[in-house]
Amino acid sequence: MIAEILSIGDELLRGEIVDSNKSFLSDALLRIDIPTRFQTSVCDDPEDMTDAFVRAAERSDVVLVSGGLGPTRDDLTIEVLARTFGQELVLHEPSLEAMRAFFARFGREMAPNNEKQAWLPQGGEALPNPVGTAPGCLLEAGGALFFCMPGVPRELIQMMDEQVLPRLRVRAQAEGGGVTRVALLRTFGMGESTLDNELQDLAHDDGLTLGFRTAFPDNYLRPMAHGRNEAEAAERLAKLVDAIRRRLGSLIYGEGDETLEQVVVGALAAAGRTLATAESCTGGLVAQRLTGVPGASAVFRGGVVAYANEAKRDLLGVSEELLEAHGAVSGPVARAMAEGARKRFGADYAISTTGISGPDGGTDAKPVGLVFVGWSSQDEDVAEELLFPLDRARHRMVTSQVALDWVRRSLAGEPRVSPRYLGSRRS
Amino acid sequence: MIAEILSIGDELLRGEIVDSNKSFLSDALLRIDIPTRFQTSVCDDPEDMTDAFVRAAERSDVVLVSGGLGPTRDDLTIEVLARTFGQELVLHEPSLEAMRAFFARFGREMAPNNEKQAWLPQGGEALPNPVGTAPGCLLEAGGALFFCMPGVPRELIQMMDEQVLPRLRVRAQAEGGGVTRVALLRTFGMGESTLDNELQDLAHDDGLTLGFRTAFPDNYLRPMAHGRNEAEAAERLAKLVDAIRRRLGSLIYGEGDETLEQVVVGALAAAGRTLATAESCTGGLVAQRLTGVPGASAVFRGGVVAYANEAKRDLLGVSEELLEAHGAVSGPVARAMAEGARKRFGADYAISTTGISGPDGGTDAKPVGLVFVGWSSQDEDVAEELLFPLDRARHRMVTSQVALDWVRRSLAGEPRVSPRYLGSRRS
Repeated sequence: MIAEILSIGDELLRGEIVDSNKSFLSDALLRIDIPTRFQTSVCDDPEDMTDAFVRAAERSDVVLVSGGLGPTRDDLTIEVLARTFGQELVLHEPSLEAMRAFFARFGREMAPNNEKQAWLPQGGEALPNPVGTAPGCLLEAGGALFFCMPGVPRELIQMMDEQVLPRLRVRAQAEGGGVTRVALLRTFGMGESTLDNELQDLAHDDGLTLGFRTAFPDNYLRPMAHGRNEAEAAERLAKLVDAIRRRLGSLIYGEGDETLEQVVVGALAAAGRTLATAESCTGGLVAQRLTGVPGASAVFRGGVVAYANEAKRDLLGVSEELLEAHGAVSGPVARAMAEGARKRFGADYAISTTGISGPDGGTDAKPVGLVFVGWSSQDEDVAEELLFPLDRARHRMVTSQVALDWVRRSLAGEPRVSPRYLGSRRS
Repeated sequence: MIAEILSIGDELLRGEIVDSNKSFLSDALLRIDIPTRFQTSVCDDPEDMTDAFVRAAERSDVVLVSGGLGPTRDDLTIEVLARTFGQELVLHEPSLEAMRAFFARFGREMAPNNEKQAWLPQGGEALPNPVGTAPGCLLEAGGALFFCMPGVPRELIQMMDEQVLPRLRVRAQAEGGGVTRVALLRTFGMGESTLDNELQDLAHDDGLTLGFRTAFPDNYLRPMAHGRNEAEAAERLAKLVDAIRRRLGSLIYGEGDETLEQVVVGALAAAGRTLATAESCTGGLVAQRLTGVPGASAVFRGGVVAYANEAKRDLLGVSEELLEAHGAVSGPVARAMAEGARKRFGADYAISTTGISGPDGGTDAKPVGLVFVGWSSQDEDVAEELLFPLDRARHRMVTSQVALDWVRRSLAGEPRVSPRYLGSRRS
């Protein structure tokens, strides 16, 4: 089976929005072993739409259509699709009822032009939309299966998961197709080409693929395994993931949607430990990432953003002498900041950052990109010098990632390594 | 002239990345009055690519091709394009030289497979790529202009701006086409439908359009003006922008790429004033946004992320009695936090946040979504109660936006209004 994705809407062709539906749909199809061969976007124009429908039916088996299901005159998907394949539109009473109930839930009356959304092609099947007004529609026409879905990502995602994928899974199985399972492993600290070299022998088997994706400052691994059925694919994927994990060890910090800050908050909670932060160049980014995790209040005591030297002195207890002797961007000050934060907040651990994120403020001795990360626990106060020749936003981002990764590694009893692939150097 | 955008690459069809190039290219074309009628993505497959090239030439005048210019065997764009239209490939010496120089700048030797990137169709024109290895290519074939660009967004954007758009502008003018100018006005504090009602009479003239775009928690206005030439379009746009500004006043905080935090840092610098922050529920987000702006160190003294009550007491001087009498999430505590931050950091102003971002921690009296924003200057200490029934991330985001907008409004002598359209209430 070959799939095609067809997005409809003037706003796409005017470049007003970035279409994230296409990648979501293609990724979902890939997991049930249906490759996407074409992605097309056309305007709300009957002629172009007709042309696209005809062509899609000729060359593809499954066509996922998104957009153009709204109540306005511009929304023509169902009408044009029906006309293209010689179908009448008929009022689908259950969909009309569902729409009325949807509006009633929000205490609003349904506008007359919404009724149009309940008219579906005679031979079609309605696809319920529990989170919006427009029902979707499945129509088998011209030798292809057309699934029409709303363009609103939230509605499309739910309809794809609940209505479209189950129907396609049954068909794919009936045609003897297999199943593909995908995992996402999140790594920090090794470059993509090095990862590729380290792992290239692992996915040489037929039906195993190892993909890479860069999501600065991380690199994600995307192992995929194909099998004749769910169980076989799952088993093969588990083996591949296991082999990768054995090789990379603590370089992998998380799997799937799990962010580094979620891992850190979870690890602190599991250990019953608390953390504080003292940030200069990252300016609150570390604290903000931690506190974005629900439940962070149980493990995060607080932090100081100490931009001015006086703040480092008054709020973190960094001595005037230390600041004068070494400068604010130095290992001793990073250590003192971390120690000060740990004590002031009464936390078990503290992490600190001080550096020059640029674009200005660098000198020959302390160039833009230089940064010190500090760590304080009851047992030790340490700091490390790093150099990331990156723009301000990425410098701050990678520094916050190093800081959070240090917390993770310290809690796991792993050595605190720093990324070597971004031009870093150690003192 | 009708344009078509053609993206090439397996990674798109596998759903591994969201293609933001298409919206960038369509938006750029719209500004020179060339509408995009089709957007298509195909795999690195010679047959599908040939088909897409032929079809694009048939139905479009301008074809912007992205991707497939790399050095690997999968990168086939130039080769297949040349073959499709019966052109030989020839080595383009200046591009080869440019590539060698590019590698030399990074102290690396050029790999042999990079040479392939300097082979271009005989009748084509090379488009220099100063930020990457692959040159682009312009080929007039099959009745259409094909512009081939790298898929890497940074390289594509620069090549579009420097090479493609100037050439297209000349052609569009020669064909008697007009010019469209677009502005972006950033507003915070009024809902999209209210904005629409307020402004709907302003863009009724022929050639004037007023678009809207939601970028939570802001709403952007996108006025467009069409003219026979650059000067006419610019004049009409300036008039429209002026009319909108007169009507909305301080609701508009910035224009174009200017973020609220940039506006705030700029206004503080212009006034020669300094700011400090005291954050509970936003957890460093306000500080992080401010310090993301280059030059923030001149106006931002620092901040405290006071998650635990002890931190509010020890680092901000909020009294135990106040915390016990009113609770941490209260107007008096918000005021005391702001006052404490202002004094501890020796700043002219301070802003504070304390609230319940959820998903847990709410009570009947203080539900999830409740938040207090506080402000302290030498003249006043104030706080306001707001309720945003949103998820954690958006609750924190809109709270940080209110806080920054208060700073902006205070510096401008404008009243501190809060958004009314997100379910907010005032005490």
